[in-house]
Amino acid sequence: MITLTSDFGSPYPAAMKGVICQHSDARLVDIAHDLPRQDVRAAAFWLTQTLPYFPPAVHCVVVDPGVGTDRAALALRAGDHALVGPDNGVLLPAARRLADEVEVFRWAYEDPESATFHGRDVFAPAAATVHNHGVAGLDELPRASRTDGYVDRRFPDPTVDRDGARGEVLVVDEFGNAITNVSGEELRAHGGETVTVNGLRAPVRRAYAGVEAGEPLVTVGSHGNVELAVNRGRGDDAFGVAAGDDIELRW
Amino acid sequence: MITLTSDFGSPYPAAMKGVICQHSDARLVDIAHDLPRQDVRAAAFWLTQTLPYFPPAVHCVVVDPGVGTDRAALALRAGDHALVGPDNGVLLPAARRLADEVEVFRWAYEDPESATFHGRDVFAPAAATVHNHGVAGLDELPRASRTDGYVDRRFPDPTVDRDGARGEVLVVDEFGNAITNVSGEELRAHGGETVTVNGLRAPVRRAYAGVEAGEPLVTVGSHGNVELAVNRGRGDDAFGVAAGDDIELRW
Amino acid sequence: MITLTSDFGSPYPAAMKGVICQHSDARLVDIAHDLPRQDVRAAAFWLTQTLPYFPPAVHCVVVDPGVGTDRAALALRAGDHALVGPDNGVLLPAARRLADEVEVFRWAYEDPESATFHGRDVFAPAAATVHNHGVAGLDELPRASRTDGYVDRRFPDPTVDRDGARGEVLVVDEFGNAITNVSGEELRAHGGETVTVNGLRAPVRRAYAGVEAGEPLVTVGSHGNVELAVNRGRGDDAFGVAAGDDIELRW
Repeated sequence: MITLTSDFGSPYPAAMKGVICQHSDARLVDIAHDLPRQDVRAAAFWLTQTLPYFPPAVHCVVVDPGVGTDRAALALRAGDHALVGPDNGVLLPAARRLADEVEVFRWAYEDPESATFHGRDVFAPAAATVHNHGVAGLDELPRASRTDGYVDRRFPDPTVDRDGARGEVLVVDEFGNAITNVSGEELRAHGGETVTVNGLRAPVRRAYAGVEAGEPLVTVGSHGNVELAVNRGRGDDAFGVAAGDDIELRW
Repeated sequence: MITLTSDFGSPYPAAMKGVICQHSDARLVDIAHDLPRQDVRAAAFWLTQTLPYFPPAVHCVVVDPGVGTDRAALALRAGDHALVGPDNGVLLPAARRLADEVEVFRWAYEDPESATFHGRDVFAPAAATVHNHGVAGLDELPRASRTDGYVDRRFPDPTVDRDGARGEVLVVDEFGNAITNVSGEELRAHGGETVTVNGLRAPVRRAYAGVEAGEPLVTVGSHGNVELAVNRGRGDDAFGVAAGDDIELRW
Repeated sequence: MITLTSDFGSPYPAAMKGVICQHSDARLVDIAHDLPRQDVRAAAFWLTQTLPYFPPAVHCVVVDPGVGTDRAALALRAGDHALVGPDNGVLLPAARRLADEVEVFRWAYEDPESATFHGRDVFAPAAATVHNHGVAGLDELPRASRTDGYVDRRFPDPTVDRDGARGEVLVVDEFGNAITNVSGEELRAHGGETVTVNGLRAPVRRAYAGVEAGEPLVTVGSHGNVELAVNRGRGDDAFGVAAGDDIELRW
């Protein structure tokens, strides 16, 4: 199986699928192609939320603001999974969720005549090749070493104490739910029936429907993190936050 | 085969697909994931328009405003088809199109730690299980009985007489076509070359291109119902209607 | 394999998939369903950019402003590929990319009761039938002849001289990149480090990231044509162009 993730919208991903089908019989599953454009951080987050639910697969990821520059291409091995994509850190957080040990290999490619669509010309053929050879085949590739490093990416840790937590909004989903980096375990350990976020006191609920329609709530989302939401509305508007914003929770 | 229908947008459905692929080899076909948010009525309508065209399959439907409340989960049997989803009526109208007799079973589940994503944590595994066991396996489940009822849902019937019909707009599609609950047979039986809808007299045509671009028309849509449309334009704007609005047709 | 292309948005394509699955075991791959509505030219362009990357397949295309009129249905053979769709020229440019010789057959159909959804009622069953019988089976169909013609479509050729090129914008993609009909070879042969488009002098770069974020550039896109772009922005806005506009490039 090969999964496909990009910010290409439509119809560009279809050419990637054609290329893969030319080279392999892999089953194709789309993760998303409408991720926020050129937003490596958001893509990295959504991959952490999605790839761990899949059986062993090759995950082809192309959110790549540096396409056509000299940024490298990588192939990662994480247990029985492989991830293929640009060397901008987008693959690492999800790979670490898939396996305790992540191995990073360099994927050499000849720059295609057009430098604008590596998804079709570099990463799709790479994913098909990795699929055909299996994750063990990655050992044929050169490893990225300390001296020949790669771009890493980690999500920031919040600071938590008995009064509250300082963290940030990692992403806002299409529903308007603001997903923070504060773990739900902290909220469960410290929080009461309400919590104050950026000055707005809101009830803590297990489900969106735990408050009336239009009312704000704080919940632990499906990702295990504290989420700022509104039942049948937009949490980002109610709490006045956007992706990347600092937030302060008071228990 | 498992079909997937939700209002989750992107990228949440990918996690559902991963879960299903972990548990079964079912072929996956997306019906839609961009249905109007938390609009059970619209989802129920679109399922009636889509599922009858499929060969026997398990249909996993998650339009679920009550997620995380005590609403039950259901599995329905309709001929060789099975439908899995929340107990809010979304499944019933389509199931009745699939088979004369519909059997309703309760799908017990343990509430997952996060109560916000039953699509991934409850309904995707349920669909995989039903797929693996076959529709006959539903007999192992408790039936929903009269005393332990379920939420039903039926679309309203119009009132029709020789002067016209009073009904309502069931949904407006992405093209702006307003789909009513008045059957095309009534229009064919009673209507002439024009019909007046909410005071606007418009020609009756078999195809959108039967009038000039930008002109309104009344037609019988692909669903068999009377539809208010504009050739290369939006019928909802021209006729001044929205989903749920009452309409009056005069032959 | 059957690929599907339409401007139907959602959820109409699902009914097409159901119909195909009823009639064949073909693997289904979506090219796009959110193409610009009823824009035959744009669909024809995107098909030229996508279908050549696929292995032999049946390509079912429904961008069909004339649905329900007396426009014919066609089945084309282009090497090992077949294309099925309305007789409005949408299929021809891509077919010519797939093979040197393109054969055009008429696909007879009985007009369905509803004349609004030939995608489901005419073209999906046609694609399944062509898939099941193979491209050789098309010989059973009547050929479209000189006297019984079909709608052709070709993209305009630019005029190029040593001072520059006069052409047009074929389409604008979702990123805002304006894709012209001027070939990248001409730009490479004649262009220097900058080129003036409609009076705006912009650098020629191999990749979007070759200029600062927000800056305009002229590049050769993944389609091999000259493209007007902005790094992390919209080229159509910066150059003041839309699909169909004439443009003038000065080397």
